[in-house]
Amino acid sequence: MTVLILTCEEDVTADMVVVHLHDAGVPVMRLDPADLTVGVSLSGEFVHGRFRGHLSSGGRLVSLGGLRSVWVRRPGVPAQRAQHASAWLTEEASQALYGMLRGSHARWMNHPDAARRARHKPWQLRLAQQCGLPVPATVITTFPRAAREFAERYPDLVVKPVSGAHPQDPPRAVPTSRVAPDTDFSAVAFGPTLLQRRIAKRADVRVTVVGEKLLGARKAAAPDADPQEVDVRFAGPGSPWEPVEVPPRTAETVLRYMREAELAYGAFDFVEDADGVWWFLECNQSGQFGFVEVETGQPIARTIAEWLGRPVPEERREADEPGVRAC
Amino acid sequence: MTVLILTCEEDVTADMVVVHLHDAGVPVMRLDPADLTVGVSLSGEFVHGRFRGHLSSGGRLVSLGGLRSVWVRRPGVPAQRAQHASAWLTEEASQALYGMLRGSHARWMNHPDAARRARHKPWQLRLAQQCGLPVPATVITTFPRAAREFAERYPDLVVKPVSGAHPQDPPRAVPTSRVAPDTDFSAVAFGPTLLQRRIAKRADVRVTVVGEKLLGARKAAAPDADPQEVDVRFAGPGSPWEPVEVPPRTAETVLRYMREAELAYGAFDFVEDADGVWWFLECNQSGQFGFVEVETGQPIARTIAEWLGRPVPEERREADEPGVRAC
Repeated sequence: MTVLILTCEEDVTADMVVVHLHDAGVPVMRLDPADLTVGVSLSGEFVHGRFRGHLSSGGRLVSLGGLRSVWVRRPGVPAQRAQHASAWLTEEASQALYGMLRGSHARWMNHPDAARRARHKPWQLRLAQQCGLPVPATVITTFPRAAREFAERYPDLVVKPVSGAHPQDPPRAVPTSRVAPDTDFSAVAFGPTLLQRRIAKRADVRVTVVGEKLLGARKAAAPDADPQEVDVRFAGPGSPWEPVEVPPRTAETVLRYMREAELAYGAFDFVEDADGVWWFLECNQSGQFGFVEVETGQPIARTIAEWLGRPVPEERREADEPGVRAC
Repeated sequence: MTVLILTCEEDVTADMVVVHLHDAGVPVMRLDPADLTVGVSLSGEFVHGRFRGHLSSGGRLVSLGGLRSVWVRRPGVPAQRAQHASAWLTEEASQALYGMLRGSHARWMNHPDAARRARHKPWQLRLAQQCGLPVPATVITTFPRAAREFAERYPDLVVKPVSGAHPQDPPRAVPTSRVAPDTDFSAVAFGPTLLQRRIAKRADVRVTVVGEKLLGARKAAAPDADPQEVDVRFAGPGSPWEPVEVPPRTAETVLRYMREAELAYGAFDFVEDADGVWWFLECNQSGQFGFVEVETGQPIARTIAEWLGRPVPEERREADEPGVRAC
């Protein structure tokens, strides 16, 4: 049975996983929804109470019943490269593709509904609190007064976007920044602002979760680091990422978060304070892992390949249709 | 405790429900997310493991813990009418608003995740099949050959969009149309096409579901109706909508569909054939009901108001914070 990978062509991180799947002899179909209807085709038939669906890419045909798992990596906008691309065609192609895939019994990394929900920062903070992870005091507000009151209680603050990357072309990450003590918060009224107590950090910590497996990595803060540099993505070189063991209690709460969020993959960002406490910043359900694997040597790609390629239980195999066929 | 209604100002159907809520003495906050951050404000604080969120609109403040239910009717695009509207601000406002609302314990009609999933036509057809509703033979395809083969098996076909309304401004419904017998299907390769066996109909049937309550309505086809007119939304005047009893077996399968889809509201469209069989066409999770209520006199708005205003169980009331406060 086949692993379906939805991602763009230039996704080299996906290549790392595909290599492992090939080594294990697991059939893979990789396609970019942006290539619907040029190079990628689909068909689904609902007749006499039965559903039979197929996807075709690069001259290969796979039945939806023959899918083992679906990895939603970095898929393009459906039908964006079609001959007559339009918002309407994108909507039609998106509903057709994802609507049909939802009818397969494949395991998802991650399911589109779980992925969508997991992107909400307020929801993340609440869930992390409920699971028992330490969360720095945070406010998200359009009330300048609420921002001012918060800054009085927590004078050392950072500001960061509520959502992810800025939707310019190409999308750009917005860095987390420190808030100056004399900040005028009146502009908060123009858009939701996320303010968070700054944790004086000894290190950044990344915990990559794949199914039930956790891979911890730690990047020590340089003793002479510029205190204005709070965002590790934009900081100077400094120490490398190194493997670190995830304390059992943290591992337990992280796995609880994953179960509640119904995620199969998650990249948790923490900061470690002077007492060694790991403070939850966010869980990115599609977080990059290539840089961690390269620096730490941790087998993240192989672990993902193992999850995606896990054998399908006998009862499912019999219920579904045959897998890849020649076109 | 308060009922929150997310909808645009010109939504007169929501007005019908608000009247009943007012009559029952249930506090209502109605707001359009498009009015973030002009007239609508929000604030949420995550401190010491606790979350306290508030929404403000028209000078009133309601705590998220004081929400009884949320009705997602016809909400505008978040922050679309803000002073400095942009795609970025919309994303920020959307994540902040819906991210916080997801942290409340309110009952949803319908929850955004369930609503999003329920819009996928292929998923609808599959679920209807699985629940045991009769579904006309359907194909969704970008393979001209698959379309041709389907048309050979089912020569009398209609074509309709896979997704909903065309995203022009204002959005426009695309009518379902008959497919001529000599159709050239080569254009199917340019975009997913939904072909469905045409049911020679004796009547259109609408079943409106509110929680566990079903309200059936039937509009008989005129004996001299133009056979080219297959879409009731675009047909000539003809007979009025009249209340009809939903057969127990259909009621059971419809309620199973609602449970599986995790919907609190759904508008099911069926066509009745010459044998009296109701064929499932679609379930619109945000389907209009005003025209049915006006023609049949069925208390749909009141039933929705009753669902939204249902008392909150004691244990939840104690767990949450107080409701509406003066600002």
